[in-house]
Amino acid sequence: MKLYDVTLAPNPRRVRIFLAEKGIDVPLVQVNLAEGEHKGAEFLEKNPSGKVPVLELDDGTCIAESVAICRYFEALTPEPRLFGTTPAEIGRIDMVNRQLELELLQAVGRAWVNGPIVAKMALGSFEQIPAAKLQGENGARAFYQRLDGELATRQFMAGEAFSVADITALCTIDFATRLVDLKPDPELSELWRWHGEVSARPSAGA
Amino acid sequence: MKLYDVTLAPNPRRVRIFLAEKGIDVPLVQVNLAEGEHKGAEFLEKNPSGKVPVLELDDGTCIAESVAICRYFEALTPEPRLFGTTPAEIGRIDMVNRQLELELLQAVGRAWVNGPIVAKMALGSFEQIPAAKLQGENGARAFYQRLDGELATRQFMAGEAFSVADITALCTIDFATRLVDLKPDPELSELWRWHGEVSARPSAGA
Repeated sequence: MKLYDVTLAPNPRRVRIFLAEKGIDVPLVQVNLAEGEHKGAEFLEKNPSGKVPVLELDDGTCIAESVAICRYFEALTPEPRLFGTTPAEIGRIDMVNRQLELELLQAVGRAWVNGPIVAKMALGSFEQIPAAKLQGENGARAFYQRLDGELATRQFMAGEAFSVADITALCTIDFATRLVDLKPDPELSELWRWHGEVSARPSAGA
Repeated sequence: MKLYDVTLAPNPRRVRIFLAEKGIDVPLVQVNLAEGEHKGAEFLEKNPSGKVPVLELDDGTCIAESVAICRYFEALTPEPRLFGTTPAEIGRIDMVNRQLELELLQAVGRAWVNGPIVAKMALGSFEQIPAAKLQGENGARAFYQRLDGELATRQFMAGEAFSVADITALCTIDFATRLVDLKPDPELSELWRWHGEVSARPSAGA
């Protein structure tokens, strides 16, 4: 088994942290985005979407999409449960994880793909849209505010237990801070309280 | 238990079809999008994202996001399995479902929110971007081509068994055809073969 990885990208880091929380060790293979390896024929055979991460099993089966890879490992090695145990927990954790993806990670992604670093790296086979960059930035900031309010009522993103939703949020916010100039406002004290706690877990270094 | 629903929207239909496949009956409550009910205080308490569908349990717990609601019911009533059984199946079905959501449903959604019906209905608290509409249309058409190729090698979206990924694809394509002027090209014969088969299931009427 091996995991096709890109160290600085937010989605592969989600899988690395998930594996660290589970105590599972999977060999990593770096994919060279700058040289377009993810759009080459060999990689597209593994994932026609041309995105990292991809998990390749020993029989050649490939699983793309960070959350799908995490679900594979949750089914294989259930403990510690990172997607919930009861039906209501399973539903609520997936809800929070999806809202983080669809309303925060995608807003950050919109700011990123329409921003200056992607323009310079010419990663985009893609027309940049300044108005979409602004929508992304505004969406991310509004969602940070919402999270700050919600985290006043619970310790972690989806309740009182650490879950996959915390991993999604951590990787998104760290990427937004380091590479998209979208660091959350220092006044969002509950969000920063949460960020300090999850960043202190050993898995955050993965 | 009740499900907050909008008959014509693609995401609530995903849950209705899922429930029909499981043989589960849940009372529906219609939400009036035209009057902005989904952005009102009462609804935002159930789902701060202001989106349908939302499942409200008898204890008041609310689960938003169509896939999260489906996962709740999969955990409650496992058979028939619509998210897979083995770890590899679970991973692959989630991968296909997510790629359909992120690369097809979102492209269709981009064409929709930047298109003429939303402009007329003034649903958007949202600046419309013509270039984003075009990106959405091109993305959807490219993904239809990809699906047509993949469906030459398998009966259903994620393999030889009907799954949640087929529900996502059916609701997306029907919405794109009826409301976004993005009907798949008649030459995509494998995609239409698949569409005929899944549309003939009793659940498709849900």
